[in-house]
Formats: sequence, C-alpha cells, structure tokens
Amino acid sequence: MTKQSMTALLEQMTLEEKIFQLMQLTPNFLSEDDANLTGPLAWMGVTENMVNNAGSVLSAVGAKETIALQKKYMENSRLGIPLLLMADIIHGYRTIFPVTLAIGSTWDLELAEKSAAIAAKESAVTGIHVTFAPMVDLVRDPRWGRVMESTGEDPYLNSEYARAFVRGFQGDDLAGDLDRVAACVKHFAAYGAAEGGRDYNTVNMSERQLRESYLPAYKAALDEGCEMVMTAFNTVDGIPATGNKWLMRNLLRDEWGFDGMLISDWGAVGEMIPHGVAADGKEAALKAIEAGVDMEMMTSHYANHLKELVEAGEVDVKLIDESVLRILKLKDKLGLFENPYRAASEEREKEVLLSPEHRAAAREIAAKSFVLLKNEQQALPLRSGQKLALIGPFAESGDILGPWSIWGKQEETVQLHAGLSAHKAADIVAVAKGSDIDAVTEEQLQEAVAAASQADVIVLALGESSEMSGEAGSRGDIRLPEAQLELIRKLKPLGKPIVVVLFNGRPLDLHGVIEEADALLEVWFPGTEGGNAIADVLFGDVNPSGRLTMSFPYSVGQVPVYYNNYNTGRPLTPQNANERYVSKYLDMPNAPLLPFGYGLSYTSFSYGEATLSTDVMNVGDTLRVSVDVTNTGAAAGEEVVQLYVRDLAGEVVRPLKELKGFRKLAIQPGETQTVTFEITEEQLRYYHADLQLKSDAGEFHVFVGPNSRDAEAKSFRLTK
Amino acid sequence: MTKQSMTALLEQMTLEEKIFQLMQLTPNFLSEDDANLTGPLAWMGVTENMVNNAGSVLSAVGAKETIALQKKYMENSRLGIPLLLMADIIHGYRTIFPVTLAIGSTWDLELAEKSAAIAAKESAVTGIHVTFAPMVDLVRDPRWGRVMESTGEDPYLNSEYARAFVRGFQGDDLAGDLDRVAACVKHFAAYGAAEGGRDYNTVNMSERQLRESYLPAYKAALDEGCEMVMTAFNTVDGIPATGNKWLMRNLLRDEWGFDGMLISDWGAVGEMIPHGVAADGKEAALKAIEAGVDMEMMTSHYANHLKELVEAGEVDVKLIDESVLRILKLKDKLGLFENPYRAASEEREKEVLLSPEHRAAAREIAAKSFVLLKNEQQALPLRSGQKLALIGPFAESGDILGPWSIWGKQEETVQLHAGLSAHKAADIVAVAKGSDIDAVTEEQLQEAVAAASQADVIVLALGESSEMSGEAGSRGDIRLPEAQLELIRKLKPLGKPIVVVLFNGRPLDLHGVIEEADALLEVWFPGTEGGNAIADVLFGDVNPSGRLTMSFPYSVGQVPVYYNNYNTGRPLTPQNANERYVSKYLDMPNAPLLPFGYGLSYTSFSYGEATLSTDVMNVGDTLRVSVDVTNTGAAAGEEVVQLYVRDLAGEVVRPLKELKGFRKLAIQPGETQTVTFEITEEQLRYYHADLQLKSDAGEFHVFVGPNSRDAEAKSFRLTK
Repeated sequence: MTKQSMTALLEQMTLEEKIFQLMQLTPNFLSEDDANLTGPLAWMGVTENMVNNAGSVLSAVGAKETIALQKKYMENSRLGIPLLLMADIIHGYRTIFPVTLAIGSTWDLELAEKSAAIAAKESAVTGIHVTFAPMVDLVRDPRWGRVMESTGEDPYLNSEYARAFVRGFQGDDLAGDLDRVAACVKHFAAYGAAEGGRDYNTVNMSERQLRESYLPAYKAALDEGCEMVMTAFNTVDGIPATGNKWLMRNLLRDEWGFDGMLISDWGAVGEMIPHGVAADGKEAALKAIEAGVDMEMMTSHYANHLKELVEAGEVDVKLIDESVLRILKLKDKLGLFENPYRAASEEREKEVLLSPEHRAAAREIAAKSFVLLKNEQQALPLRSGQKLALIGPFAESGDILGPWSIWGKQEETVQLHAGLSAHKAADIVAVAKGSDIDAVTEEQLQEAVAAASQADVIVLALGESSEMSGEAGSRGDIRLPEAQLELIRKLKPLGKPIVVVLFNGRPLDLHGVIEEADALLEVWFPGTEGGNAIADVLFGDVNPSGRLTMSFPYSVGQVPVYYNNYNTGRPLTPQNANERYVSKYLDMPNAPLLPFGYGLSYTSFSYGEATLSTDVMNVGDTLRVSVDVTNTGAAAGEEVVQLYVRDLAGEVVRPLKELKGFRKLAIQPGETQTVTFEITEEQLRYYHADLQLKSDAGEFHVFVGPNSRDAEAKSFRLTK
Repeated sequence: MTKQSMTALLEQMTLEEKIFQLMQLTPNFLSEDDANLTGPLAWMGVTENMVNNAGSVLSAVGAKETIALQKKYMENSRLGIPLLLMADIIHGYRTIFPVTLAIGSTWDLELAEKSAAIAAKESAVTGIHVTFAPMVDLVRDPRWGRVMESTGEDPYLNSEYARAFVRGFQGDDLAGDLDRVAACVKHFAAYGAAEGGRDYNTVNMSERQLRESYLPAYKAALDEGCEMVMTAFNTVDGIPATGNKWLMRNLLRDEWGFDGMLISDWGAVGEMIPHGVAADGKEAALKAIEAGVDMEMMTSHYANHLKELVEAGEVDVKLIDESVLRILKLKDKLGLFENPYRAASEEREKEVLLSPEHRAAAREIAAKSFVLLKNEQQALPLRSGQKLALIGPFAESGDILGPWSIWGKQEETVQLHAGLSAHKAADIVAVAKGSDIDAVTEEQLQEAVAAASQADVIVLALGESSEMSGEAGSRGDIRLPEAQLELIRKLKPLGKPIVVVLFNGRPLDLHGVIEEADALLEVWFPGTEGGNAIADVLFGDVNPSGRLTMSFPYSVGQVPVYYNNYNTGRPLTPQNANERYVSKYLDMPNAPLLPFGYGLSYTSFSYGEATLSTDVMNVGDTLRVSVDVTNTGAAAGEEVVQLYVRDLAGEVVRPLKELKGFRKLAIQPGETQTVTFEITEEQLRYYHADLQLKSDAGEFHVFVGPNSRDAEAKSFRLTK
C-alpha cells in the first residue's frame, strides 16, 4: 500500500476504530462464548465492538484457528483492515530448539539464525505474523529465571545474537518471504537487571551503565531491521518502561530513529497502577500513549479511556494517528491487506511442523550448545562396550523443552533414555529415577544404588525442572535441590565413574555436584531432539564445543559476578591475596567457579603467542591480532577463539576485559589454524563522562584465548 | 585569625610549602628513624622537607606523642603553621561504645550525640583535632563488612544520626570548647553500595537514587556544620569519587555550597591508577586537585607532581591556594595558631580516659542498643535462683569491642562472663567455650553438654569475630559459622531454655540459630562495658528497647532486602501468593526474616487506631497524626513509635514505606501515652523526573506502628 492510501485509510477511520486498533487481546476474547462476554470481557470493560475492531490477537495458533479468526474478523471489519497475529515463539514453535541461553552457548551466529528461521517458518504456516522475540536482555544475576531466555552477560555477544535472530525471523524480504515473521525485540529496557534477581523487581542503574551494557543489544536488533519493540515490566530510573517518555520518545524514537511499532508487555500498561505512577486506568493510558506505546497488550485502558482523553484535550489525536499508522504499516509490510492469511495453511502445517529437516537442525544445534564443564579420567566420551546405568530425575523426563515452549509437545520429544538407547554404542544395563527433582525417598536411593552397581559407568541426569526458571521463576538458592545432591553422594562411594548430564535454565552453584562428578556436561534445556543430541555428544559423535556466555558463580553470595567487571582501586591479585585491605570476600573467591567463555572439548587446543601488527595504532588504522591455534589432541574439534580488550586508563573506569570478537574454528588433530582479528579505533570507544562515545589515547591490552580467564595480555598504544 | 591575615600568610608561602600542606602522613614518616628514610619515605618519594611541611598527620595519639610531634613540627615550620592531627575515632577512643550499627539501634539521638561527645573529649585530650567520623553511608547489603559502621538502611534515620554525631563531636563552639574535635563526614559518596557487598567494589546507581537515598545523610551532616568531608574509595557513575569533578565540584561545592576541607580516603588518590582513570601518579594528582580534593591521605602524588603541573600550566595555582586556605582555615578554627596543642594534656588524659562517667555512658548506651529478636516461654529476663551455664566462643571473649576500636583495650573490657558474674542475681554453675568461632572439636562439644547439664538455663554466646566485619570484612555467606550451629544443635536436645546472646557486626541469616533458641538477644559489638550491659538486660534491670535499623535477611539469596523498596507492577500479596506471575522467589519469601524497625521488649505495647487531623491536606498545612500507645505488660519499658508515609501515585515510583519520624517513649505498666507526629508538604517531596524536589497532589498512606512491617494504613489527600 502506498503512503497515500495508508493515510487515506486512516482518515476513514473513526476515533473509536483507531483506538481499538491499538488493543491486543488473547483469542478467547474473540470467541462467541457467552460465558466470555460476562467473564473477562465484562471484567475488563471490553465491549464486543472493541473486540471486533481490536488491532491484534496474541497466542492464536494453528492454521485452522487463525484462518477462521481472520476470516471472521475481516467480515466484521468495516474498512477491511486485517488482524495482526502475534505469539511468543522464543526457541522454536513445534520443533523446540534449546533454550536461548543454550543457543548462546554455541557461539555460532549461523546456527542461531537457522533456529530462528525454522521457528519463523513453523509459526508462519500456522498463521502467526509476529513473534515476541528476540529477548536480548543482558543478564548478570542467575537468580533471575529469565536468564534462560537471554544469550548472557556480554553486550557485544548479545548484540551479535540479536542481529542473528532478527535475520532468522525476518529474512531479507518480509513481504515476499511468507515463511518469515516480524520480530519484536524485548524487553525495552534493562529488564534483565531486576534487583535481587527477583522477576519484575525494580531496576536501578545510571544512564551510563544502561548505554554501555544494556542498550547495545536492543539497538543492534533495530539496526538489523527488527520491526517491533516490546516494553519491559520494570522501571527505568524510577519510571516504568511502559510509561517512560525519556526511554521511548527521547531515546528510542528521537535518538535512535525507530519508527516501528512499540507494544507493551502483557498487562504492563495497567501495571503502572501498582507501580504507583498512575492513580487509575485513565492515567495509565495517558502515560503510555504519551511515552509512545502504540499497542496495549491485554489491558483495555486505551480502549476504555483514550477517547475521553482526546475529547478532553488531554491527548492529541495526532499521537493516536501515529500509533495507528505504525500498526497499519506493519500489517501492510506483512502483505496482510492483500493476503490476510499470509502463510497460514493447514496443509503445509503437516509438511513443515517438526519436519525431519527441522528435527535434524534441532539435534545439531542442541549438540553444539552443550558445554563440557568437567572431564577427568577420560570419563567422556563413553566407549562402546561400557555398561551404563542411567540414573536421575531427568533419565526419562520429557521436561527438557524448557520454559517458553508452549506449542512443543513432550510426547514428540526425545528424552534422554530414548536418545541414549537409540545410539548404536549404548549398552544401558539399568535405569532408575534416583530422586524426584526436589524430594527423595530411601527406596529411590536404593534403586539407584542397585542400578549403578550393575554398570561400569553411571550416567546421572540431574537438574532443575522447567518451572524453576523462566518467567517468574526466580530462585534465591541456586544450588541443585538437596535431594539430588543426596543422590550423587549416595552413588559416589560405589567408585564408578559418574558422568553428570545437567538440565537447567540458569547458571548454578555447582558445589555438591562438580566435585563428585568425573565428567559434567551442561545440556541446559535441549529441546525436542535433546536425548539424541546428548547421545551424540556422550558417545563422541559430536565433540562438545559450547562455551558459557554467563559466569557460573562460586556461590549465590557472590552475585552479581560477571567477567567484564572493573578493577576497583584495590584489586585482588595473587600477590596480595593474604592482605586484608583488598577488594575480596573473606570466605570465598571473587572469581566465579567457571568463567564466561569457558568450555572443554574431547581434544585439547594450544595457543601460540598472539602477535600484533603494530604496537602503536593511529585513529583510522586497523590493528591485526593473530594467533595460531593447534589441535593437540587426538580428536577433531571446535574451538571458540575469543578476543578481549582492556583500556588501561580512561576518563571513566573500563572493564577488565571486553569481548570484541570471536571465531569458532573446526580443527583437525595436529592441525594449526591462524586466526586474525581486526581492531579499529571505533571498537575502543565508550561512553565518556559527557555520555559521548569516544576513545582514549593511551595503553590498551589485548587478549586472545579460550575463555575470559585464560589469556595473556599484549599491549598497544592508541595515539591521537 | 582574620581573613586578611590568613591571606597574608598564604602569600608568604612558597609553592612547595603550599603543596606540602596538602599532604597527610602517618607519624612514622615524621620519626627520625634512619630506616624510615630509606623505607616508606624513599618508596613514596617523600623527602624530609616534604615531611617537615606536611599539613597533617593521622593516627598520632597520646598527649605525650602528639605534643612532641607538634613541638618538633612547629620548630621546623618557617611560618609557624601548626600541624593538624586526625584519627579514626569511630565509636569511642579509649572508652569504646557499641559499634555504630548498634548505636543506631538505640533510636536515641541524644545517646548517639553523647557517645560522640565523650569520644571527642577522650581523643581531644590526647591531642587529636579531627575525627574521621561520622560514617553515614547508607547500607543495604549485609555482606559488606562496614555495615557495622553505619546506622543502617534508611536515609531519614541516617540523616538524623549524622546530625547527632556531628553535634556530639563538634559541639557548638569548636574554637572555644577544647574537648571537641572537628568531624569529617564520610565516605563521599555512596560507598555503602559496593556491588556484591564486596568492599571497595564498583558502585552503580542513577543520580536519582543517589540523591534520594544515599546523599541525604552527608548533606545533613554538612547542614549541621560538619567541618570536613572524606572521599569514598568507590566509583560514582564510573569515575572514582576522589577524582569525580561532578560529585565534588558541581554537587558538593557549587550546589551544596560546602567550603570546608575535603580529604581523600587512605591512598585513594593513588588508587585512581588501578581504578584505571589515571595512567600515573601525575595524572592522579591532576584529577584529584581538579575534582577538589584539598588533602591527600597517605600517598604523595600531590607532593611529587603538583609543582610540575603548576609550572607546566596544567593546574592553576588558584586551585592550590584554595585548598591551602581551607586547611589553614580549619587549623585556625580549631585555634591551633594560638594554641597548637589544643586540649592535649598528659595529666588530663589520666582523668578523662575511661573515666567512671564514660564507662557508665558506655554501659547505658550498650544496654539500649541491644535488640531482643526472640523471647518465648518467658526465657528472658533471667530470674534469681536460676542456675546458668555460660557457653560459647563469646562466653569469655574480649573481642567484643568491634572493628575500629584501635585505642580501646581488651584488658579494660568487661567481657560477658565478668559482667554476668558481677550481677547480684547471677548463679553461673558452669562455663564452657563450646566451640571456636569457626571450628569445633568433639571435646569442646562434650564440655559444653556437660556444662549445660548442670544448669537450668543455657546462656549461649555466639557470633562473628570482629575481623569478620569492618573494613575489608566482606562475607559471601552471612550465616553463623557452621561450628557454632553445630554447638547449638548439640545443646538443643537437653531440653533446657537456650538464651542466645549474639555478637556481630552485620545482619545475619539467623537460620540455624533462631529456631533453636528460646530467646535471642542481638548485642552487636557492645564495647568496653559490654558484659555489664548484657547482664543489665538479661536480668531485666534494663528492659531491651533497641530496634533494627537494617533488615535481617531470610537468606543471602534475597539480598538486597530493605524495607523502603518499591511495589513493582506485580506485587506479591497474601491473595496472589500462589499465582506464578508475581514478583517473588519460588523458594523463599520476599520479606526479610526480621524487618527494619523490629525489636521486642519484656513488656508489651498496644497501639490504638491512628487518627489524622484532616484527610485533605493543602500545601502549607500541617497534618497531625496521633496514636495512643499503651504498655499492656507488667514491666516498665521503652517503645519506638515509628511513622511511615507512602505516596500512592507519583511521577516516579515511590517506596512502599518511608520513615518520616519516630519517638522513643518510656511507658509504665498500664500507662497510655499519646504520640503526635506532624507531616508537612515538604516532607512529601521527592526527586521528580527532572530531578527537582516536589510533591504530588493525590493520595498518601500514613502508618504508625512498632516497626516497618506491622502498621495499618490511614489515608489522606494532598491537594494543590
């Protein structure tokens, strides 16, 4: 549609029709169930007229339902405006990929993009137009349950993933490529910094920290063309994001130039009342529209109050026109005026959903997302002929899809026992649950010991249930439940190798597990093909190559712990560790148990000394950093070579290390590959005291290595 | 001295003499020990000439030493400028009062002032002119060891204490009242917000939070006339406080109009190098002088580099003149030009230090600082005729003075056993250590059980050693050490009443102690008269009246937890506690174990319904809130009646409760007293989006009650 015809359409709309366009509801509101009309509809003050003109519906799925919904809607639509259908497609629709934190652990942007493209295709054929993804919130607190939805603690890495996911969801041509969906980056902004790791809690940070650490990934998604933005539940500098004018008018619209559609999170407009910045729904509507929220999700304050506000002169109708236009534009961009059903097709659903190709991709991505955290006495890979006892609450659990896998099905999921059994080399002599997630009986323990006694190796599948993380899944204690620690303590005296396979959605304090295990494979929530992927890795068909993107703390008492922290004025060093007046804990280390970027392999890699193309860099120059990486073991493997930089003296304190690049290399045994990174002055810029992005002349350190901890510094100077 | 003669003096000084005035060193630098000249002096690049002209010395104590030091210094001083002597007199000099967190728990500003006045007097007679106190850092993280130096988590309460301490140290007439010392408020700013509770760690918050929560207490101290300010070790918005121009020029000097002396914390100028904002000492000196630091403590970057910087035109000599003038002014204000020895007197020392009057004050303040956290089955007060077993690592420990009691002496301290034995009603039948602080043997446990078996009541003295808190005393685990938990578990099966007396410098996670104890008395580090004061309270001679000024967390996994938090958009309520999508932890409550303001008594108090003088308040009005408080028990007692306010809908989210007033009442059994608080519009102001202090028209809640948790809301409207 041309700009002219769009404006003409807008002009034909009544004020009410415009306002109703700004509302998003769940499909049950649109059903003709009488109970509904007296239930939620009445409760929210939503009339049938509003519903029939609502601009969008969320969580309607399945081609049959979405086609019927759209058909009925179009019949009621005076002006032929199609309905926009959105849903939370986070890590897969029917084919469930590993949770996002796991995808992040692949350090493979192409795989991330591929997972999003498949998720887009599967949801598009069911009639979905927009996904509420990617979630790109930077996270530093493993107590927060939604860390599983993030790619971790690094602004650069998160930004690269943000771009990859947007590319995967949207493709290059949203209008022409019907197998794509529009992406909606969330949660704007800084939702990942909830105080105490308690979901929805207050966020507090300086504008500098917001810009330096938290904003880059949202910006990256928008730079990649992401069509929509979702507001966050939290406050940003004391004002809920959903009513935060500075955040959304000044920053998002004016400074960043975003002119796409902005939607509130579920109920977030109404939540301004408990937040305490709106006395009632009318004030909430006023604040949200003034702040620039185009569409209100699941509350009806716009529908109920905007007309009155316009008529009273409190809201300029221009604001509403702008919002409606943005919504219409997105509908147009998706081609919905011409084809309101887009890719929805009951027939294609059968062919696309959970296709062998999609399953294969899920298996590949899962295997590459696993992080080998410990491997002693060559416990892994498992070898043909070993008798295995498969023990633990996850031995036969289907709860391995993780949070946000609403349309995935446990019955279509390859759980661990099935996956392991299907492997040609597997000889499973006994299976036992050993314990529940959070409780254990003496009988369970005895069964586990009996099972283990028959085997050469114990494969112990432990973890958190999916409800223990995800939205509103905050935990104050991030150890494995005591019941499971008891199980491993019970098995340890048997003296058999224990290979722990760990399912979970957050970094855990691994004390009580990691000391007891001979090998520990972090498999997160691995998705539909989890069991097969785990078998691939346990038996060495796939050499593990995942790397942590979030530090695993030594203890919750150390949180927040993240690699890109600051030196302080009294840094702890190996030399001063016994002195009192240094920045440290008396009872635990400052360092996490396992650092950002960490992960083992079945082979080993050695790093040559990094060489710099120059030790003095001028503005405009490109500094090249090269290093030889050799596979010194017997197996082919993949290594994630990581580049970090440190600015030794800035106007503002700089992180001890900042990731500036990485390369994932497949290296054959005995082979050496040379990696060369490029560094330009632009990469050395940061927000100065005046919040301007500039670099400092002076000394920098550059590190190339296998993780954020183990890398030697080389030095160069930037001159200006 | 007149302003003219001060300026004349300045004009006579050479640039070097001026610069050396800006240096503060420890007295060993001024000794004539040859080893010193080749040791620290040489290491710091400090020459004899610098030392002889250094403007100040810290930690020189004892009249004999300070007089000799001043005498020698004056002999060397070309212009007759006296030396300024400073020291850390935090909670007493020789007579040690309870730690500041304990003094805070008295909710008694007069007692706080009295403790400071006595500390001033005792230090003044030893020749000290300035104390590095009060420390008024707001604290929310019990992992941080220096919470023991703070009065807690509330900006209003901290501000009131800041004023009281300044009054106590400085009196009304610093020049005329020689028994006073100048106060130096610290640590400017926000040192208490060290990330992860790890001392010296990064601080990050918005300017709004800084102004709303952290700055008020510093400002209050200055409003009370505090002569000096000390910088903090931490960064403030990315720039170390000691080099932070915005913080100290724009805010402290220009906005607040502070023209007193600003000193760096120990070595903090040099620490800008590890912080990473200065490449070397020269740049550190430049940044500190530009930011407005007048005196450099314990590094010599000013002395070594300022001359060169002035000569190169990088530093305007005016900056140096301003700093020198501020130092000279303070010396003049203290009367040192006329009497460089001020109150220093070996003779008066004998009379003043640890005088019976001071001991009595220490005993009174200690007893009033104890907080009764549990008392079931009338375990307390102890009754005459009860046979007592005194058990625990603090039964006979002298380590009850707490951190920052350098000049207090354990041998002059009444430890628990001594204090208890001295009580006429005490019948101690057995004493056993039971365990060390952090270790226990089977033999110790057996001795403890044997001791307990002989008694009717077990008095169990547990706690943290003083090194476990205080500066650089950060802990990631805030439970009592496992050894002591084992001890109480061992004693529990004897079935005898257990009265725990808890010594410590921070809020602890009391699990493992509080369930086992019948009574629990928090005595902090009670100081010189600790044992006597504990006996006073245990036997009921003093009815405990202390109230917590910092929340005691349920678990470290909940930190930070503080009463004046925000509601969020999805608050947890009793009604929705079983729903998932609310702001909560899955595995622990949101609330602390014990709330701010909490504390029990040997009697009970009942509150009538609060009445408001009006339910509509206009700007300019005074709202009166009255409540009747009745002592419904059998003993006389003191109750701390607390007034909280909540702004229901603001432009910016407002705390669920904010302390706005309190009154400590002594009430006889059966007696009722009426408390009336006044609320004005000014008290309802807060920092709006534009950082201006304004109030909102609309609804407010007001609460009057015994702590921050237990109080019913009354409502009023502010109209404008």
